[in-house]
Amino acid sequence: MTRRTVFFVSDQTGVTAETLGHSLLTQFDGYEFDLVTLPFLDTLDKIQGAVEQIEQRAEEQGVAPIIFSTLVQDELRQAFHPQQGRLIDFFDSYLPVLERELHAKSSHKAGQAHGLVDASRYDQRMDATNYALNNDDGARTNDYARADIILTGVSRSGKTPTCLYLALSYGVFAANYPLSEDELESGQLPLILQEYKDKLYGLTIAANRLQQIRRERRATGSYATMPQISFEIRAAEAMFRRYKIPYVDATRSSIEELASTILVNTGIERRVRP
Amino acid sequence: MTRRTVFFVSDQTGVTAETLGHSLLTQFDGYEFDLVTLPFLDTLDKIQGAVEQIEQRAEEQGVAPIIFSTLVQDELRQAFHPQQGRLIDFFDSYLPVLERELHAKSSHKAGQAHGLVDASRYDQRMDATNYALNNDDGARTNDYARADIILTGVSRSGKTPTCLYLALSYGVFAANYPLSEDELESGQLPLILQEYKDKLYGLTIAANRLQQIRRERRATGSYATMPQISFEIRAAEAMFRRYKIPYVDATRSSIEELASTILVNTGIERRVRP
Repeated sequence: MTRRTVFFVSDQTGVTAETLGHSLLTQFDGYEFDLVTLPFLDTLDKIQGAVEQIEQRAEEQGVAPIIFSTLVQDELRQAFHPQQGRLIDFFDSYLPVLERELHAKSSHKAGQAHGLVDASRYDQRMDATNYALNNDDGARTNDYARADIILTGVSRSGKTPTCLYLALSYGVFAANYPLSEDELESGQLPLILQEYKDKLYGLTIAANRLQQIRRERRATGSYATMPQISFEIRAAEAMFRRYKIPYVDATRSSIEELASTILVNTGIERRVRP
Repeated sequence: MTRRTVFFVSDQTGVTAETLGHSLLTQFDGYEFDLVTLPFLDTLDKIQGAVEQIEQRAEEQGVAPIIFSTLVQDELRQAFHPQQGRLIDFFDSYLPVLERELHAKSSHKAGQAHGLVDASRYDQRMDATNYALNNDDGARTNDYARADIILTGVSRSGKTPTCLYLALSYGVFAANYPLSEDELESGQLPLILQEYKDKLYGLTIAANRLQQIRRERRATGSYATMPQISFEIRAAEAMFRRYKIPYVDATRSSIEELASTILVNTGIERRVRP
C-alpha cells in the first residue's frame, strides 16, 4: 500500500476542501492517504505556519504531499507557496470560468460557503433539528401536521440518523415512528400513521446487517436473534406493500444516500442547502 | 438582481456537486441562482431526461444554465452533452492531474464518496449520534467518561445542533450540559463538570441574537427577556474564564464553523470524514 499525505487548506472551515479532496481520492484504489486538515488559516502568520508544516512533512516522507486549497482571500493566497507539494487550488480553477460566464467579478471574500450567511438559514436548521429531536422514535405523535416526512420501520433501521441529517443539512422536518412488535403482528398500520399516510416513508434493512447493529446495542433477549429480526423485517415490508408506502433499503446506503433518495422520490423541497 | 439557473448533476447523491458549486456561487454577489439538484442519474435514460430538462430550461429562460457535474462513470459522462449550458465537471478537471501525480489510473467507479464504503464508518456515525442523543441537554451525566467533548453554555446557545453535527459528520462523541440558573447564580461549576474539566468547551452568544432565538421558542415568562438573557450570558462567560474553559462565540458562526473551530482548538481527532 502506497502512502501519501494530503493537506486540506482553508481560510474557513475546510469542509469544502475536504469534500472535494475526498471525492477525488476515493477514485484511487491501492493508496493509503494520511489526511490533515488545516482550517481557519486567516492570517499571514498562520499561512506561514502551514507552509512550514507541509514542507516538513515532505522532507520526512521524501515525497511531495497533495494539497487541496480553498483559500479565497487574495493576500493569503499570494502568501501560500509551499516549495514542495502538488497544489490543487479550487477557486483558481473555477472562479475565472464563472467570472467569464456571469460577466461579473467574484468577491474573493471569505466565509461565504459555510459561514452564517444569514440568520434565517441557521434558524431553519435549528427548528428542523428540534423538530427531529422532539419527534424521534415515536416519542410524540401529535405534531405530525408539521412534518415534511415521517420515517417508519423496525428498530435500528437507520431512521434517527437519517431524520437528523435531513434536518441539519436540508432544514427538512422529519419525524420517525418505530413499528412495535404488536403493530407488526397485527399487520395494521397504526391509526396515527394512517392519518398521515401521504407523509410516510419506510426504511428496511437486510437481516444479517440489522443483527450486527442490534448486537452492538443490546445482546440479550430476543432483540438481536435471527428469528425475531427476520419476522420484524418481513412484517414491516409486508405492511409497506399493503399500504403502498414507498420504502428504501438502508443496508448498503450511507446516511447521505438515504436522505438524497428520500428527497428525490418524494419531491420534498430542501429549505437550506449544504 | 440577475437570475441564473444552476444544475447539480450526479450519478450519486449530488452532495459533493452541491457543496462545491455552492462554494463557488457564494463568491458572486448580486446574482440570484435557482438551484436544481439532479441526483442518482445512473442510467442512460436518466441522463437523457436530465439533458432534456436542462435544454428546456435554457430555452424558457433564454440564457444557458450553469451545470456542476460529478458524474463519474465513463458511459454516463460520455452521454451527458447538453447543447446549452456551461458545464463544470469536477472529475474532468482534477482526476488527470492526480493520475499523473500518483502514477495511477483512477477507477471511475461511482458511489465512493458518500456511499456506504464500509460498515464501520456507518457504525461510528451511528454510535456517535446515539451518544449525542442520550447525552443531550444534561439528560444524563454518568457517561461522560466516553465523551470526546462536553459542550456547555446557556440554553439555546447552539450546543445541541453542534453536538449532532460533530457526531454525524465526524463520528465524535459530544455531550452537552446546559448551565442552570442556580449554577449561574452560584458561579460554581457543577461538580460533575469539574470532574471532566479537560473535556469542557463553552459556547456563548450575543444577547440580542439569543433573545431572537428564545422568543421563537417560548415568548412568555422571563426566559426571553433582556435582563434575564444578559445575566445568564455574563455569568456563563465569567464561569468559563474563572475555570479556564475555552469557549467560542456562536453569534456569527454556522454549525459547520463551530464544529471545525472546536476540533481545531482541542485537537480532537475526526473518526470519520465528510
